[in-house]
Amino acid sequence: MAENEFVKEIADIKNDFPQWYTDVVLKTGMADYGPVKGTMVICPYGYAIWENMQREMDARIKANGVNNAYFPVFIPYSYLEREAEHVEGFAPEVAVVTYAGGEELAEKIVVRPTSETVICNMFSKWVHSYRDLPFKVNQWCNVVRWEKTTRPFLRTSEFLWQEGHTLHATQEEAQEMTLKMLEVYREFCENVLAIPMFVGRKTEKEKFAGADVTYSIEAIMQDGKSLQSGTSHNLGQNFSKAFDIKFLDKDGTHKYCYQTSWGTSTRLIGALIMTHGDQRGLVLPPKVAPIQVVIIPIQAQKEGVMDKVREMEKELCDAGIRVKVDDTDQTPGWKFNEYEMKGVPLRIEFGPKDLERGNLTYFRRDKNEKTTTMLNDIVAKVSELLDDIQKNMLEKAKKFKDEHTVTCRNRDEVISAIEKGNFARAMWCGDRACEEKFKDDTTITIRNMPFNQERVGDTCACCGKKLDENEGKLVLLAKAY
Amino acid sequence: MAENEFVKEIADIKNDFPQWYTDVVLKTGMADYGPVKGTMVICPYGYAIWENMQREMDARIKANGVNNAYFPVFIPYSYLEREAEHVEGFAPEVAVVTYAGGEELAEKIVVRPTSETVICNMFSKWVHSYRDLPFKVNQWCNVVRWEKTTRPFLRTSEFLWQEGHTLHATQEEAQEMTLKMLEVYREFCENVLAIPMFVGRKTEKEKFAGADVTYSIEAIMQDGKSLQSGTSHNLGQNFSKAFDIKFLDKDGTHKYCYQTSWGTSTRLIGALIMTHGDQRGLVLPPKVAPIQVVIIPIQAQKEGVMDKVREMEKELCDAGIRVKVDDTDQTPGWKFNEYEMKGVPLRIEFGPKDLERGNLTYFRRDKNEKTTTMLNDIVAKVSELLDDIQKNMLEKAKKFKDEHTVTCRNRDEVISAIEKGNFARAMWCGDRACEEKFKDDTTITIRNMPFNQERVGDTCACCGKKLDENEGKLVLLAKAY
Repeated sequence: MAENEFVKEIADIKNDFPQWYTDVVLKTGMADYGPVKGTMVICPYGYAIWENMQREMDARIKANGVNNAYFPVFIPYSYLEREAEHVEGFAPEVAVVTYAGGEELAEKIVVRPTSETVICNMFSKWVHSYRDLPFKVNQWCNVVRWEKTTRPFLRTSEFLWQEGHTLHATQEEAQEMTLKMLEVYREFCENVLAIPMFVGRKTEKEKFAGADVTYSIEAIMQDGKSLQSGTSHNLGQNFSKAFDIKFLDKDGTHKYCYQTSWGTSTRLIGALIMTHGDQRGLVLPPKVAPIQVVIIPIQAQKEGVMDKVREMEKELCDAGIRVKVDDTDQTPGWKFNEYEMKGVPLRIEFGPKDLERGNLTYFRRDKNEKTTTMLNDIVAKVSELLDDIQKNMLEKAKKFKDEHTVTCRNRDEVISAIEKGNFARAMWCGDRACEEKFKDDTTITIRNMPFNQERVGDTCACCGKKLDENEGKLVLLAKAY
Repeated sequence: MAENEFVKEIADIKNDFPQWYTDVVLKTGMADYGPVKGTMVICPYGYAIWENMQREMDARIKANGVNNAYFPVFIPYSYLEREAEHVEGFAPEVAVVTYAGGEELAEKIVVRPTSETVICNMFSKWVHSYRDLPFKVNQWCNVVRWEKTTRPFLRTSEFLWQEGHTLHATQEEAQEMTLKMLEVYREFCENVLAIPMFVGRKTEKEKFAGADVTYSIEAIMQDGKSLQSGTSHNLGQNFSKAFDIKFLDKDGTHKYCYQTSWGTSTRLIGALIMTHGDQRGLVLPPKVAPIQVVIIPIQAQKEGVMDKVREMEKELCDAGIRVKVDDTDQTPGWKFNEYEMKGVPLRIEFGPKDLERGNLTYFRRDKNEKTTTMLNDIVAKVSELLDDIQKNMLEKAKKFKDEHTVTCRNRDEVISAIEKGNFARAMWCGDRACEEKFKDDTTITIRNMPFNQERVGDTCACCGKKLDENEGKLVLLAKAY
């Protein structure tokens, strides 16, 4: 069986999804394990994907009037303690520096798990008047959260991310910004990563430590589990009160600022792998693929073949398409396998017959289909194909998402739907204790509460409580990474 | 005196250069002090310069076949100890994590001061055959070196940099790569930052801890002190032996790899400030200026003024020029002052008279000169001016460098030249003890040994020893940041 040729090095995607994931990450050279437990190395191929993601995301962040800056990785331990919920949330997972420069430190230092506290300290020095508002910064950096169980990209002691932080004069403006950045994330995931999202509000239990409200985008992976892919927080005045960030308003009185923060991370690379990958390995959307087109010369020694290949390479390269020619002495079959595993969206095979007949033979990784057509305008054809692959990958992922979202009326239906690899939409009474008990019993969590609320049942699907007409919330339930 | 208007907030550049530097850094919003002693915040204006520098440098690194990757910030303490010179050099200044996830760690962890050790650990897993060589990676990241005395950009406990690491089959190839990247740094500094460099080899005393040979580029600041702006190291087989990085060569035998590493950092922003700044504040080369042209409307309420201003803004923006219109209600005088302080290369003042007469009035920050000319093709004119400013800034800096480089025959001449704000070129006997004693006595250091060696004296300018015909080296001497 042809399919089997590609299977040999990668675990079965249907039977052992976790091992399939690890195999794909390691064998494609995306990441490796660092020497300190729980850390990862992002290898060149994985990092090139991250650079493409960064470029797209960074442009969107700047288009919203946010400038980049850089804040220190070291935070005084006492800063963490200023916001009560914040320290409770993060203290158990921080790494602490106690020695530096050969001496024991007078005050312990935390390696940033997130930067609200150090940034708030600076905000309180920088912001004085309504004229200074809104104040918007973002940083791209590493953060550290000590984890017991780790997996490359999904959960590691150190990861890379962007964290945006904004200050506003009013609660309304802060709320608007919170939702605007959530929409930026959703649009980015859909249009760049080809991953459709479930958008909604987190429950009190699941919100960010220190926020008034947290919103998230959640994606369904091929094993039916949810990957939280980005969060946006309305912090209200919690941190501005703890760090004394006040401004002189137009009315001559001093007021505490309203604040937001929002972040996405290298975790999105995990989402990319588990949304689009197949038995052969990675499938990358053209917009973030380090190599968009690979050209494999067939019988390269035959006259004219390499000349034409180099001509195509130059034309594509000049048009800004990320193209690679593999003219090494490996067999074509080995190369096909290799670049399919690496998820290259489009492969061109070019040999003497193609040259003679004026043909273009290409393989689309999204459909695993080979086609031969007339070679006319190579740039126009490749651009069209890359656009179509990008579009098709999103449609395929949307179809999967829709087919795996099940509306459930009770606990049994929820558990059964999720066991079959679906997300469940169901009513929840709104009680935190009910949510916690349901999670303890089933390992299923409320991912978020969709913006478009509707009533899909009369009882709480978690505890069975009868819900009055105005009681209960529609929630999205799943097991999560 | 007109000059005085600008002086009020910035210390006198001639009388108090260190305070002038600090004032410029803080008042232009380039950087601020972080809460943990010795750390800095890179504010949006300073970070935007860094982003422009990164884009230019990153393209040059990639053009040399080097791919970006990311290695963990945490390194096991024992890794540092594997290379004897390396641990001796870095142990005194590392920050150490002893607690994480609520528990004391079994093995202490170092926050990376540089990444040779953790990268070598990965190299030993990745590289097996001559086919894997050369292997070239680079990373952009934060590093930590605990410092007693700190100054923003020049010396801070945490800074941002790029560090490149390569493996080669032969000593010759490693040496070639070491010099190639040194040349990349020199060319970048000259053509992007408009800073001419003194290029040469470091002495044994001053080389990188663990290298066979270190080369540096050194720049002269306006106070006559040297700023080491980039280093490139030939590491020989020191780390490959310590970390067992071997490859199977074509001849069927296993050999240790030859290795290089090279880095530049946010320190270059300090070089930028101290090379080009003047009493009014920053002077930025167009290639890295966050704002290349600022347009100040004069009598903006007059009919047609803002229409024309917006038209110019759009044309410049469409042409890829970083333009800003300041239409706030501050006075023109305040705005002139502000953007001069921020080092914006070109200012356009546009009012009713310019509109009426078809004029363009502009101010060049490099010359502090205002000119009025006919307004024809705005994009062509501005592009031409920006090119000329970039060129003129380099010429000016080269002239300063040449005028402040003095060839000296003995100790008194060296000390006198350096006290007058110059670099000294002089003969040195080559003895480490002599170099150390001279530094202890005078705080003057050997910056590097120029590639173009010539004999400029018969005795060692540091210890007075008589030099035979083949003895001694031409060295560059200066006090250093």
